[in-house]
Amino acid sequence: MTTAPTRTPQGERTRAMRARLLEAAVECLVERGFSGTSTTLVSERAGVSRGAQLHHFPTKNDLVLAAVEHLTEVRGAELRAAAARLPSGPRRTRAVLTMLEDHFTSPVFTAALELWVAARTDPALQAAVGPLEQRVGRDAHRLTVTALGADESQPGVRELVQATLDLVRGLGLATTISDDARRRRRILDQWARTLDAALDPGRHAEKEGTT
Amino acid sequence: MTTAPTRTPQGERTRAMRARLLEAAVECLVERGFSGTSTTLVSERAGVSRGAQLHHFPTKNDLVLAAVEHLTEVRGAELRAAAARLPSGPRRTRAVLTMLEDHFTSPVFTAALELWVAARTDPALQAAVGPLEQRVGRDAHRLTVTALGADESQPGVRELVQATLDLVRGLGLATTISDDARRRRRILDQWARTLDAALDPGRHAEKEGTT
Repeated sequence: MTTAPTRTPQGERTRAMRARLLEAAVECLVERGFSGTSTTLVSERAGVSRGAQLHHFPTKNDLVLAAVEHLTEVRGAELRAAAARLPSGPRRTRAVLTMLEDHFTSPVFTAALELWVAARTDPALQAAVGPLEQRVGRDAHRLTVTALGADESQPGVRELVQATLDLVRGLGLATTISDDARRRRRILDQWARTLDAALDPGRHAEKEGTT
Repeated sequence: MTTAPTRTPQGERTRAMRARLLEAAVECLVERGFSGTSTTLVSERAGVSRGAQLHHFPTKNDLVLAAVEHLTEVRGAELRAAAARLPSGPRRTRAVLTMLEDHFTSPVFTAALELWVAARTDPALQAAVGPLEQRVGRDAHRLTVTALGADESQPGVRELVQATLDLVRGLGLATTISDDARRRRRILDQWARTLDAALDPGRHAEKEGTT
């Protein structure tokens, strides 16, 4: 993606090195889990010297937290782009669920899961993961409300959107033990029907383009 | 619970020792996570000699797997007992959700979560966790179908029951990061209403005792 690499300014080289470290850290979390991830392993994988790695991320927690934050931002941008491509009409709700399913079964979910579970028994990590999760949760909620065209001023709508996100989180967790794409598909087919029936019927007319 | 401890036969002493080891292993998983759990720590906590511990559970994986299996059975029995105490009438669905919520926010869920995440990157553990999870999943599904009085021959009902279990699993996972009992309560209040509306209306008449 960089042009004229021989003239790359220092700032850009630093950014590229940080990005390599963060991507290597996410790969490590996904492949080896939190306990199998070490700063040595990550710097080797990224092709970055130990000194440079330690300069940017003094501890393993700094590194994995920045990595998951970075990937969350990348995925957030991808989610927003996917939301912009959603079809209108009666298939929109199901398409929103597929979009969320893709997100919650992706490597970013797996890496975040490793971080969550590690944070559970590591107060320093917990202190950093908590606020990150709150932000991620708020963003995902807002995006889903908009994508569904849900009217949160209606009673129960906010809770159904939250339930949708908790459902796909639960499906994502189930997927880490056994791959069950078929089961997920059937559940989300039904969830889309339930959601359409439960959300404000006026919205459906709108979705169908009849208003 | 044991009577006349001085005359406890060998078999019973062995069982009691195994149970102490398994309970200590679950406590360790909950407090320190999978990576912070060691057979040494567990045998110390259980007050069992290293030799006896190694005799019963040669490896850490043997021990934690047996521990989660043991606790799953205990909790399964507790769930069945709780199901037997569920109220009938219009509040039954909400009570079923509370029962499941209690299960998926309990130490057995936390211990199982540690096991799932560790198994993700440990093929030997995965080979043992997979079948255990399938059995647990089937049992929880069956119990929920019965508790809800759901008619799975109706289209979509099986998927709604599965979605309910995936939803509470997602809520359980969220709880490991931040305690949000209030948020959970609102979501499950709404889900109970949605579930009642989505399941066969004939069933509700039955629940009300009007058939």
